[in-house]
Amino acid sequence: MMTLKFVLAITTVIGCVSALQATANVARTLRANGVNPKKIPIYRGAETPLIGNDHDHEGEKWFFGADGISGRPNDFPPVEAEDFLAHVEGKHAANALVDIFKEHPNEITLVCLGPLTNIAMALKLCPMFSQWPKQVVCMGGNVYGAGNVKSYSTAEFNFSNDPEAAHIVIKELQCPVTIIPWECFLFPASESKIDFHAHLNLDTPLSKYFNTVTFSGRKKLEESGIQYAYCDEIAMATAIDPENIILEEKKLRGSVELHGSLTRGQLALDWTEVLWNEEKMTLGKFCNKRRPIRFVVKYNIPFLDEMIHKTVKKCL
Amino acid sequence: MMTLKFVLAITTVIGCVSALQATANVARTLRANGVNPKKIPIYRGAETPLIGNDHDHEGEKWFFGADGISGRPNDFPPVEAEDFLAHVEGKHAANALVDIFKEHPNEITLVCLGPLTNIAMALKLCPMFSQWPKQVVCMGGNVYGAGNVKSYSTAEFNFSNDPEAAHIVIKELQCPVTIIPWECFLFPASESKIDFHAHLNLDTPLSKYFNTVTFSGRKKLEESGIQYAYCDEIAMATAIDPENIILEEKKLRGSVELHGSLTRGQLALDWTEVLWNEEKMTLGKFCNKRRPIRFVVKYNIPFLDEMIHKTVKKCL
Amino acid sequence: MMTLKFVLAITTVIGCVSALQATANVARTLRANGVNPKKIPIYRGAETPLIGNDHDHEGEKWFFGADGISGRPNDFPPVEAEDFLAHVEGKHAANALVDIFKEHPNEITLVCLGPLTNIAMALKLCPMFSQWPKQVVCMGGNVYGAGNVKSYSTAEFNFSNDPEAAHIVIKELQCPVTIIPWECFLFPASESKIDFHAHLNLDTPLSKYFNTVTFSGRKKLEESGIQYAYCDEIAMATAIDPENIILEEKKLRGSVELHGSLTRGQLALDWTEVLWNEEKMTLGKFCNKRRPIRFVVKYNIPFLDEMIHKTVKKCL
Amino acid sequence: MMTLKFVLAITTVIGCVSALQATANVARTLRANGVNPKKIPIYRGAETPLIGNDHDHEGEKWFFGADGISGRPNDFPPVEAEDFLAHVEGKHAANALVDIFKEHPNEITLVCLGPLTNIAMALKLCPMFSQWPKQVVCMGGNVYGAGNVKSYSTAEFNFSNDPEAAHIVIKELQCPVTIIPWECFLFPASESKIDFHAHLNLDTPLSKYFNTVTFSGRKKLEESGIQYAYCDEIAMATAIDPENIILEEKKLRGSVELHGSLTRGQLALDWTEVLWNEEKMTLGKFCNKRRPIRFVVKYNIPFLDEMIHKTVKKCL
Ligand SMILES: [Ca+2]
Ligand SMILES: [Ca+2]
Ligand SMILES: [Ca+2]
Ligand SMILES: [Ca+2]
Repeated sequence: MMTLKFVLAITTVIGCVSALQATANVARTLRANGVNPKKIPIYRGAETPLIGNDHDHEGEKWFFGADGISGRPNDFPPVEAEDFLAHVEGKHAANALVDIFKEHPNEITLVCLGPLTNIAMALKLCPMFSQWPKQVVCMGGNVYGAGNVKSYSTAEFNFSNDPEAAHIVIKELQCPVTIIPWECFLFPASESKIDFHAHLNLDTPLSKYFNTVTFSGRKKLEESGIQYAYCDEIAMATAIDPENIILEEKKLRGSVELHGSLTRGQLALDWTEVLWNEEKMTLGKFCNKRRPIRFVVKYNIPFLDEMIHKTVKKCL
Repeated sequence: MMTLKFVLAITTVIGCVSALQATANVARTLRANGVNPKKIPIYRGAETPLIGNDHDHEGEKWFFGADGISGRPNDFPPVEAEDFLAHVEGKHAANALVDIFKEHPNEITLVCLGPLTNIAMALKLCPMFSQWPKQVVCMGGNVYGAGNVKSYSTAEFNFSNDPEAAHIVIKELQCPVTIIPWECFLFPASESKIDFHAHLNLDTPLSKYFNTVTFSGRKKLEESGIQYAYCDEIAMATAIDPENIILEEKKLRGSVELHGSLTRGQLALDWTEVLWNEEKMTLGKFCNKRRPIRFVVKYNIPFLDEMIHKTVKKCL
Repeated sequence: MMTLKFVLAITTVIGCVSALQATANVARTLRANGVNPKKIPIYRGAETPLIGNDHDHEGEKWFFGADGISGRPNDFPPVEAEDFLAHVEGKHAANALVDIFKEHPNEITLVCLGPLTNIAMALKLCPMFSQWPKQVVCMGGNVYGAGNVKSYSTAEFNFSNDPEAAHIVIKELQCPVTIIPWECFLFPASESKIDFHAHLNLDTPLSKYFNTVTFSGRKKLEESGIQYAYCDEIAMATAIDPENIILEEKKLRGSVELHGSLTRGQLALDWTEVLWNEEKMTLGKFCNKRRPIRFVVKYNIPFLDEMIHKTVKKCL
Repeated sequence: MMTLKFVLAITTVIGCVSALQATANVARTLRANGVNPKKIPIYRGAETPLIGNDHDHEGEKWFFGADGISGRPNDFPPVEAEDFLAHVEGKHAANALVDIFKEHPNEITLVCLGPLTNIAMALKLCPMFSQWPKQVVCMGGNVYGAGNVKSYSTAEFNFSNDPEAAHIVIKELQCPVTIIPWECFLFPASESKIDFHAHLNLDTPLSKYFNTVTFSGRKKLEESGIQYAYCDEIAMATAIDPENIILEEKKLRGSVELHGSLTRGQLALDWTEVLWNEEKMTLGKFCNKRRPIRFVVKYNIPFLDEMIHKTVKKCL
């Protein structure tokens, strides 16, 4: 059963590239899908994190290319100057989120694929926003303390880019929250004998575009002998079809660490609750007041791959 | 093959009970083994952590009993007043460690079952100490960011009690280090259909004593529907017979977080090295200068259980 | 020379009371001045800090009264229900700040008397905001590491309430910034033989109102044998007439500490620059890239007192 | 009245130079005084801080010279090879401190002129040590949050080098503690029209030696237009003759911040107690459990200068 019928709006934020570049990337992606970028409103959001980190963005370009999608502007569909102006002028993504969700309380799924700056600002501009999403599905954070940004950090990239925003979102959202942690990529389910490249070689525009935008990352992974695999795609698929995508989940309470020198941006989870049952909660050192988050720890790789294939073939 | 032939000395430290109480517990344990406590030198060590935490020791007594071993002083062998004086007078455990290892460089295995305060002090009193142990096997810390002390902490108990000591030990030791992380207990290998209680019902003095000293903890675990299992025992068995005990290990570099508000005392590991191969090390954000630590992530439960049985029956 | 001709708008924020209560207090204050609250737009702002602290607001009420202005609703002018609705509906203070300053770049002085949440959000919603104020005068923070919130904190109240907002504001503002640190109150200039009570006994409406709203705080200060003195008033007077108000100032670079357990929210200033001259800047450990902030360390108490008297007598 | 009759022992520690180099410097200084270095036991102490900081020791050499005393080995008295072996072999300074003070409880003044690593270790090796000094006089830390190590730190050099040691010492000492904070140098009493160079030009061996060892630092201060002044000398003089040296003192409770990114190593003091009187202590946010420390905030420069002159002329 598909729960996501259409895309109401897209917001952009600084991550491995600027919100401006991300806006252009979204416009180009829509065009690759045969969609007029004016049909789906794009709201440009934060160009800096709330506080941020001394993040080595050069290091990201090494992996993702200068524009975050392999740096191949002449590939299909070629970059157009208007891509950079495709956003709705004069309205910050955070204000747009407030207005859109206010109009459709409990109806819209919010899928987060980048740093959470815009969502945090929406929560701060309007505390009621915390109750308005039907659900939030977020690619970001971790469940086993594994980081992917640098040797001396246990933070995942999206959370590392704006730890304060991640902290606010995890703490304040009052709707169901599902997280696709970084470890879904790092510790993939062992049965994953999937040819992750097959969908890139189909003779469709979208296949070609996927081939282009993942080119740089795939090459880097290959050089290190790592199989290319899905990541943000898991989050989108989980939003669309959780029953088929999620093979194993964990419900855990947690908060984002803001003050560590090695752990700033890490999700600090409460595993004591897994160990002890309700009775323990009478001890002051245990607490079950925070809302539990659903973590996807094992997902159905073949099912996701098939969804991707259908999408690429436009028959989803 | 047994690598540990005999116990040269035992040091005590504040943990769930004071170093004074721990000293008495060691003396009583030696007596339960039929060993005269004067035969194996006991060195009393730190009565406070270097810095420490606002640790809720009442909460520990809830689990371990007032004396840390179930609070049953009249059970076999009954507590004796001399137990509290069984240590070598006038020599701090840290000074004893320096002197003992100085005399036997590369010969002795150091097994750590409590907070690392004494070891850290030995390293500070004598930097050469870092190279003297043949190996260090340590029960403590974590590999997947799971804590066991309280809801708002990702630190394991021993590391949480003295994060600075754990930091110093992990950073400064120059010999092989093996860690039995808390997750060995939390995420036991699935095939563990062991009757962990069998060895407690053998008709031997040591069986009786084990029954006594684990009484309180087992009861608490049962109340929460958790199977009683081994913990410190894994470390000792790993020191004695690593080939048979370790089913799966991971080599990871890491440091102890000192500054987090939720993660203080957690081991912050470098998983980027698992992902990327050597080539990545040219990027400044990656670093492989720290010595890798061996983490036991899966151990041979039946083999350990058999070791325990043999020990209890005195036929090891 | 007066540089501040009229008040364009007032924004409210959670501090010792909620933004809602602060809004009502502003409306009542305008009425006490004989001003229709509809004449000066009031924008209600943040009801929570970005991240915040576990702040003991009960402790504040002990000093300021339940409504933050002595809790005497029937005194002149009595509280009216409409006071709580006096704000401009549907526009968050942060959005209002962006719109107002965008329209009048380099023309408006921004005076900050509470936590800096709204200003930080304005900077995040619109990075250009950093260049639009003519100047910012801020009561908050410290220059000598003295806190006023609790024994185990070196943060001043306004900065302590939203350290992240203070950090953002101090870091990102590109216009001249003047800070009236907490130490202006704690270490007053020695010649301060002023009767701070005189203006409270003048027979004018405003005198009566001042008497009311400072009642609770003055009583608490008296009980501790501390002379009542000015605080927020210094900031407002500095904005109006800096030449006459400022007796001594220091120019220092600094940042707000976010991660200390005792110093979270403190201004961490660079005194090395006071010591060493330009030449030192070639050493990596010294840095003069941050914009210097002007700190008022000694102000003209009699002049301020006269300004207050004139204000109270409506002849400023 | 002189309270310090003779020097019982000297301990060395890593600071701007290694403990080894410091040991040699002490031996040379004793020789410059006409004292046989074997007459006063020197105990070599910690060669690394407990945890430490990424401290730029190159930057210190810029100021103090390669050996910490201007790097002029051929000046009077020339460095001798035995200087580096002048310490008592086989006894760490921390153990020596424990043994010496244990033998003379409440009789000895401990003067600290460097990082506090050895003292902290003595406290950890023997908690009773906290009660044994008659008093501790310490050059280090700050009273107004001013740092002297680098732009992005509010820590004073000695505390910055080993924040954990400073934390332990400040927290655990139970005897009277007097601190000469860095601000005694930074904010000298205004009447200081002293010729700080006069004592360097007297025709005595000690005058010559002082000239040598302060050469590098004086030159750097001159280049920056800063008057050369006393620092460690204030601590020693305060230990000898507090009544004449201390012009103004403050009693404040405090702790050393360990976790800040800008304030790590700063003394975080409780100024709320200065403001509020005893009655406040009923509120949970206020606390007067920590022992107050005496801070010298203004000292008698001419009196100290005269003491130095007498010392240099050997007529003290
Ligand atoms: Ca992404
Ligand atoms: Ca243990
Ligand atoms: Ca205020
Ligand atoms: Ca010194």
